[in-house]
Amino acid sequence: MSELSVDHLLGIKYITKEDVDLIFKTADHFKEVINRPIKKVPSLRDITIANLFFENSTRTRLSFELAEKRLSADVVNFSAASSSVKKGETLIDTVNNILSMKVDMVVMRHPNPGAGVFLSQHVNASIVNAGDGAHEHPTQALLDSYSIRERLGEVTGKNIVIVGDILHSRVALSNIFALKLQGANVKVCGPKTLIPKHIEKLGVEVETNLRKALEWCDVANMLRVQNERMDISYFPSTREYVQQFGLTKDILDSLNKEITIMHPGPINRGVEITSEVADSDHAIILDQVQNGVAVRMAVIYLLASKIKQ
Amino acid sequence: MSELSVDHLLGIKYITKEDVDLIFKTADHFKEVINRPIKKVPSLRDITIANLFFENSTRTRLSFELAEKRLSADVVNFSAASSSVKKGETLIDTVNNILSMKVDMVVMRHPNPGAGVFLSQHVNASIVNAGDGAHEHPTQALLDSYSIRERLGEVTGKNIVIVGDILHSRVALSNIFALKLQGANVKVCGPKTLIPKHIEKLGVEVETNLRKALEWCDVANMLRVQNERMDISYFPSTREYVQQFGLTKDILDSLNKEITIMHPGPINRGVEITSEVADSDHAIILDQVQNGVAVRMAVIYLLASKIKQ
Amino acid sequence: MSELSVDHLLGIKYITKEDVDLIFKTADHFKEVINRPIKKVPSLRDITIANLFFENSTRTRLSFELAEKRLSADVVNFSAASSSVKKGETLIDTVNNILSMKVDMVVMRHPNPGAGVFLSQHVNASIVNAGDGAHEHPTQALLDSYSIRERLGEVTGKNIVIVGDILHSRVALSNIFALKLQGANVKVCGPKTLIPKHIEKLGVEVETNLRKALEWCDVANMLRVQNERMDISYFPSTREYVQQFGLTKDILDSLNKEITIMHPGPINRGVEITSEVADSDHAIILDQVQNGVAVRMAVIYLLASKIKQ
Repeated sequence: MSELSVDHLLGIKYITKEDVDLIFKTADHFKEVINRPIKKVPSLRDITIANLFFENSTRTRLSFELAEKRLSADVVNFSAASSSVKKGETLIDTVNNILSMKVDMVVMRHPNPGAGVFLSQHVNASIVNAGDGAHEHPTQALLDSYSIRERLGEVTGKNIVIVGDILHSRVALSNIFALKLQGANVKVCGPKTLIPKHIEKLGVEVETNLRKALEWCDVANMLRVQNERMDISYFPSTREYVQQFGLTKDILDSLNKEITIMHPGPINRGVEITSEVADSDHAIILDQVQNGVAVRMAVIYLLASKIKQ
Repeated sequence: MSELSVDHLLGIKYITKEDVDLIFKTADHFKEVINRPIKKVPSLRDITIANLFFENSTRTRLSFELAEKRLSADVVNFSAASSSVKKGETLIDTVNNILSMKVDMVVMRHPNPGAGVFLSQHVNASIVNAGDGAHEHPTQALLDSYSIRERLGEVTGKNIVIVGDILHSRVALSNIFALKLQGANVKVCGPKTLIPKHIEKLGVEVETNLRKALEWCDVANMLRVQNERMDISYFPSTREYVQQFGLTKDILDSLNKEITIMHPGPINRGVEITSEVADSDHAIILDQVQNGVAVRMAVIYLLASKIKQ
Repeated sequence: MSELSVDHLLGIKYITKEDVDLIFKTADHFKEVINRPIKKVPSLRDITIANLFFENSTRTRLSFELAEKRLSADVVNFSAASSSVKKGETLIDTVNNILSMKVDMVVMRHPNPGAGVFLSQHVNASIVNAGDGAHEHPTQALLDSYSIRERLGEVTGKNIVIVGDILHSRVALSNIFALKLQGANVKVCGPKTLIPKHIEKLGVEVETNLRKALEWCDVANMLRVQNERMDISYFPSTREYVQQFGLTKDILDSLNKEITIMHPGPINRGVEITSEVADSDHAIILDQVQNGVAVRMAVIYLLASKIKQ
């Protein structure tokens, strides 16, 4: 197995366990590269990548941009704010225009679920989904699993709980797909109003009590409270959320074991987790960020290999 | 003839037929380059270019940026939104400041007609006009002519009609200059209110009936309807415009010949042209975009050669 | 002496006379570099620098970016407008995230005085302060002193007056520290309401009469009138300011000597100085801009040398 089964990374839903293994093996190499004094390889000198961000993003765009530059790709950035999108052009026309300038790969964040899949069916370039609405965020899920593997040796058989607003979270959905694909046991935990109906069909159990979830798990992935996505009438107030689902050092200390704490960032300190927890040795939050660059280098490198064939 | 007659590209009005020929011959080379696996040449490693965009733009800025990077120039971007322009600095001071940082060439889009010409008289750098108000957009006209030459073998003697809002269009004006310079026959077609008085003095005929224009022409260049530039009291409604000047497959099929369809983008599908027309073999819209990078590489390369002397 | 006494450039307050001398000697070399045909050196191919601008800036960001690129560093830009800062993330979390992506140095502009100092105590990277509120702007002060040294041979013993809104100016404060450190004599001149109380404690004299100040000085550094920072109730109107503190050619001609005129830009022509003065041989305003790139290259190069140890 030396190449991906897909030409795009649109979601974890569309890739195989073998794809994940290949990405992780490749990311191991790139993680070593970015810890060298010269953090670059000349691999993709012949590839031009456009980062199309139709939604604002700091860390994801920066992580992709660094991954691309460390592979020596040529990079152009495009954000919706200054774009023809406002002039009424269709997404396909916008992207086809960019591709006509001999761009080989498009990394796209878009507010609409399925935007990446739609695009991949209509344009001739490799597409990487950097987040499409509340649908998928596959590189986040890959870097999360990669970080669990790094900390605990493997993902298979581990107990992982994802805590927070599962309903609106592309991070949750992609993580569920990735973790199940690798044979982890997955629970979700949060207010009932923020857990999708029928989520059990994905092989996931629901646990509305945080303490019980923590007692069960090896890893807790604490999602960010995204006030901007909430339906105000359904959601508990932030204060109620913190009381029921906020992770404190007291809770961690009261468990009979050590668990690993993850967070996709940006953190609301004192909401999802307290500062004590975020800055403790339990947390691998900054490892996740570092691994993000290596995992994205791996994804881009492997997709580019298929373009070059 | 191995160098341009000018030190700047301010408008087609200021260059010669020999300049156009030299640019096209050079663009032929760069078009071959950008279709290689490694789409770059090291030619301008010693040149720093600043892209100054005082108006938003996607495709033009991206096309210039890719052209510059593929020539290995150092590139810095500057947009009005985050600029000192808001602090009341004059254009000359802004540009002189940037040039003092040892910048060799300025690619500028500006809302004021003549901004490039004015600047070239007051600062010591090579200026490329990337659009100045309703005045000129010379690289667009060059890539349009280059695309006609590619499709039809030559521009000389061909019949070209430019359809739409001629009055407010820098694309129309630069195209008229470029096409006449190369000995094409040019008509303009659109609502009377959107055709400049005395345009016949440029050697151009006016035709207000789209069908008649199409029966005459080899190439129809369908301008974008720019609602943002319209004087609401004069212009026909969009619905009336589409009825009279919208290009459909039915019209094309009813002609006794094949014509080539161009569009500078971004397309309003269903307004200037229908999707069927835009996606047909008649249309060379994406060729125009691809040729844009090669033509801009040629312009920048040839102007840089004069700097280095 | 071949290395800086500090790991960060947070303010002139924190560095020594030897640091300034080393920066200037290094800048001499880089000034020669940026006047070569190929304006680059490969020195920092192994360094990644993030430019974090939490306030808009044109010239400073561009100057840093060119300095970094001419040292062959990898550069990523980050502006507050599109950042997670809006999502309520702390500054330390934002920066730690970026650093986790293996970024070696952070150039930061921030509206809060002391933001750079605070950050340097909490994160593991080299920090360059590119302006923190009304506190310090150390690279501006260094390039100003470097430009005086270039024009007059040395800074020590020279008489320098800083004219304008001293109270709200980071440029003034950093200049005072830098000039005193090098043994210059410094006066400040401006409306009493815009001069900080107890400024004499910094070894600076106050002179509220512009003519007297000019008769005394070798160099006048004319600060920009920053209407956006003014407390409307205290400040003289712009018209009164121009009458009392605006520098005209008539005033310059009436002095019995030649003085050097500086301005940090952007200029309000006709306010702080007239166009005649700005464009005269007395003014070294564009030299300041050019020297800014060389001085910033020196600062970054010397700080990077310490990282590599």
